[in-house]
Amino acid sequence: MAEDRLIYLPLGGAGEVGMNCYVYGYGRPDHERLIVVDLGVTFPDMDSTPGVDLILPDIEWLEARRDRIEAIFITHAHEDHVGALGHLWRRLGAPVHARAFTAHIGRLKLNEHGLAPETITTASPWPETVQAGPFRVGFLPVSHSIPESSALVIDTPAGRVMHTGDFKLDETPLVGEPFSGALWAEVARPGVRALVCDSTNVFSRNPGRSEASVGPEIERLVAGATGMVAATTFASNIARVRTLAEAGHRAGRSVVLLGRAMRRMVEAGITTGVLTDFPKVISAQEAQDMPRENLMLLTTGSQGERRAATAQLSRGKYLGLRMHEGDTFLFSSKTIPGNERSVLRIVNAFSEMGVDVVDDGSDRYHVSGHANRPDLQTVHGLIDPAMVVPMHGEHRMLREHARLAQEGGRAAIIAPNGTMLDLGGDRPVVADYVETGRSYLDGKLQVGALDGIVRDRIRMALNGHVTVAVILDEGDDLVGDPWCEVMGLAETGASAAPLVDVLEHDLGQALGRAKAGTLADDGAIEDLARRVVRKSAMDEIGKKPEVTVVVSRLA
Amino acid sequence: MAEDRLIYLPLGGAGEVGMNCYVYGYGRPDHERLIVVDLGVTFPDMDSTPGVDLILPDIEWLEARRDRIEAIFITHAHEDHVGALGHLWRRLGAPVHARAFTAHIGRLKLNEHGLAPETITTASPWPETVQAGPFRVGFLPVSHSIPESSALVIDTPAGRVMHTGDFKLDETPLVGEPFSGALWAEVARPGVRALVCDSTNVFSRNPGRSEASVGPEIERLVAGATGMVAATTFASNIARVRTLAEAGHRAGRSVVLLGRAMRRMVEAGITTGVLTDFPKVISAQEAQDMPRENLMLLTTGSQGERRAATAQLSRGKYLGLRMHEGDTFLFSSKTIPGNERSVLRIVNAFSEMGVDVVDDGSDRYHVSGHANRPDLQTVHGLIDPAMVVPMHGEHRMLREHARLAQEGGRAAIIAPNGTMLDLGGDRPVVADYVETGRSYLDGKLQVGALDGIVRDRIRMALNGHVTVAVILDEGDDLVGDPWCEVMGLAETGASAAPLVDVLEHDLGQALGRAKAGTLADDGAIEDLARRVVRKSAMDEIGKKPEVTVVVSRLA
Repeated sequence: MAEDRLIYLPLGGAGEVGMNCYVYGYGRPDHERLIVVDLGVTFPDMDSTPGVDLILPDIEWLEARRDRIEAIFITHAHEDHVGALGHLWRRLGAPVHARAFTAHIGRLKLNEHGLAPETITTASPWPETVQAGPFRVGFLPVSHSIPESSALVIDTPAGRVMHTGDFKLDETPLVGEPFSGALWAEVARPGVRALVCDSTNVFSRNPGRSEASVGPEIERLVAGATGMVAATTFASNIARVRTLAEAGHRAGRSVVLLGRAMRRMVEAGITTGVLTDFPKVISAQEAQDMPRENLMLLTTGSQGERRAATAQLSRGKYLGLRMHEGDTFLFSSKTIPGNERSVLRIVNAFSEMGVDVVDDGSDRYHVSGHANRPDLQTVHGLIDPAMVVPMHGEHRMLREHARLAQEGGRAAIIAPNGTMLDLGGDRPVVADYVETGRSYLDGKLQVGALDGIVRDRIRMALNGHVTVAVILDEGDDLVGDPWCEVMGLAETGASAAPLVDVLEHDLGQALGRAKAGTLADDGAIEDLARRVVRKSAMDEIGKKPEVTVVVSRLA
Repeated sequence: MAEDRLIYLPLGGAGEVGMNCYVYGYGRPDHERLIVVDLGVTFPDMDSTPGVDLILPDIEWLEARRDRIEAIFITHAHEDHVGALGHLWRRLGAPVHARAFTAHIGRLKLNEHGLAPETITTASPWPETVQAGPFRVGFLPVSHSIPESSALVIDTPAGRVMHTGDFKLDETPLVGEPFSGALWAEVARPGVRALVCDSTNVFSRNPGRSEASVGPEIERLVAGATGMVAATTFASNIARVRTLAEAGHRAGRSVVLLGRAMRRMVEAGITTGVLTDFPKVISAQEAQDMPRENLMLLTTGSQGERRAATAQLSRGKYLGLRMHEGDTFLFSSKTIPGNERSVLRIVNAFSEMGVDVVDDGSDRYHVSGHANRPDLQTVHGLIDPAMVVPMHGEHRMLREHARLAQEGGRAAIIAPNGTMLDLGGDRPVVADYVETGRSYLDGKLQVGALDGIVRDRIRMALNGHVTVAVILDEGDDLVGDPWCEVMGLAETGASAAPLVDVLEHDLGQALGRAKAGTLADDGAIEDLARRVVRKSAMDEIGKKPEVTVVVSRLA
């Protein structure tokens, strides 16, 4: 009989920033008992996933082994770690563990899907632990950009694994537990077999800065502002939200929370006790009656999201409030690669209104929530693991992080999504490659990324669409002329005649010349019509549209 | 009779980086004689302009006054200054002036549109000038990131205007004329009424660095590399292309030019005499037989363009050449906002191959071609104009540049596209607002940005598309059942039945219940069908698709 083994399998997050989902297993090969760490989402974009609502990890592998899943652990309440919980939980059905703040957010998500809040058990922090089959898991508090983030200390029969989750080293995080080298050293003392470690900021060469460093800068900015001040950050960055609110409060301004996530996160913070002493908040309605120099708005949408409060303010008003010449708008945030255009659209719209925009260029009003390169080296040294497995990062980040660990004399491996590792030996070894990918939440459905649906949408967006209708009688003769309708294409092309007239004429000719056999065969008619339409459109307008052919036969 | 006036009108470039097109006029109001400065393009993106090939300035205002256009001046050969020449020239029909390198590129563009090369007259640099109606225009050499860039010294009866084009202050530009403070001072001596000035880098706080500073860094990198080295930059940045080629040559590597633009630009440089001493180049075919450590590839596609050489290499091979583990890929370029995702896709693909990617993070291997904030201050001082008109930049840049000029005690104004200024007084004054915008090159056609074509494409991409076919007889009775086809939508929804079956069933029911009047009216049938399909699809799959309804009536 094969020996028990300890495996690690990323299903999301290793090869991307976002959509975190990791599996650990212990037992005989193909009989391991499993735990899942995080069930996150990532976000669609117009280039590759138009019309998609959310991108979820492909959990088919897990679902096929659901009887072996002992538990699901959520490290923190960011969408890329907990966002898929509501969408995917039914397919896994295992108990969920998280600390209070994370559990609160997770329960709101389960509730939206009609799932019971008791599915999630609130965990106490390390040194408390949760037993899950062969695993004993502790939530070690780490600092990040949301309250109660945790690394997981995972004890297994093969030794201890430390899964960092997202983290930074911050001794003055303002909200939540400060980084404690002593505590980490205590965790490391029995020996750590594998450090599975956040790679997001491996390319940031300077040590990370503390959340406490931005407060004075923000206070100075707000104190010196004359008109209304608005500021945006991720609502879940509760320390920052409080810093912004306090800066407003100290400058004699009333605080207004704009955007659902902003109100929800502040409520969650207060409910779960992580947020105390939050300045008094007034409603948007109350704010309308106040002098604008006495207002401090905190808004959602720091990444330029079209429907969020920030974008709406940039297009006009939001809940009756408007930005004016002489007002100040602060981005207390960093633009995530890919969101630049949306954010700049907002900055320029504010500029047209005469609003002074203060953005992230200076790094004065924002610090990252991830450990930078020197911080990663510190952690490698502090935990002193037998091996480092870089996770959470694009491939280039995993690669750089592995190199950094190797330069420090440690075994390391690049294990992108789908790479199953055996962590039981001296160094990580690839045990298997698992078919994995993404699935799309599209309206009400979860569809496979490779189903072709999104590919067809992209093609219609690039090429436009032509509908062709052909009617035939019982003798396979054409009834009337073929009919065309276009969408997303110019009405008139090179010949100056309406495009549909040209297409219908060319189709009529081609079908008129077609052999009887062709007209007896719907597939042959479709092929012919598609070919004719694409060629005629190319001649007329220089584009090859997508074509839908409807063949109707009179009985 | 009204007095003569001097006007300035940006039709593109003021409110964006790209698509430069500026108009100057002199004469009685609405009878001014006109000159055009630059005819540039900007590039489409999937978010806002899917399927569009190029974005051109809307020149309707100019076209309606084509009898008043004396000449077109092109400052330099970047696409955002000359790219629309071939597409738009016929609609303006005026003589074109440019310096030799720019003229060479411009003629290639005219040739592609069957236009005569003599349309462009090669201009000599300042102090030579070209007379164009009431304007006398000199090409003052400036340094930028392409050879023979020029500021225009525009003498008018109302005084001298200096239109900088794109520029930086570089005393060692490697290719082209170094910046000469003495020459600029000479131009300024008679007094400059208006400085119309590049704003691109107004937010860059440090003085710009010289092109000469990157050479040693690149040489060091290439000399230390072991496998094949490939590097990308804008092909038109001939100084950089030569620096890269020389670094390869000195390291004992043979240079290979990959991508049409790379070969075309090097040829243009040699033909026009701006590029001398370029190392010997070998073909991709010859390169295949050489040891990879003896090769230096220069590739197009520094912005992640899908079809360029760089992207193709990242997906596999290009002209038989492949990147391998241990090779080095250098981005000697800066990623333009909005292109991050495409560039990172390439970086990660190279990372998966084990290629060492050196990107722009360090600023060691790239310098900008635009004047930074302190450089702009230097130029304001050197030219000492009566007024500063910021151009070429997003609105936030124009605004910041105007503020910078005002802080220096000069009159300045923000004049976005369509703002006609009267430059004849003490300070710039808005004379008029002109309806302006963009037009799209879409296949063979130029279509208006507001024609709704692109909007329909975006909707199909977001919502998918359903085709409905309905046949009625002479008595307005349905013949057979309505027929549906979907594109870009899931095949099966909530009810587990095929989506088209559900749609056809619901349509059949709705049409069966419809009043006779409805079935007699094609528009009413279409409205009803669209409503039913959208509602049923929403219930089944949670999306409201675009719908094309084809109603056929048997005669």
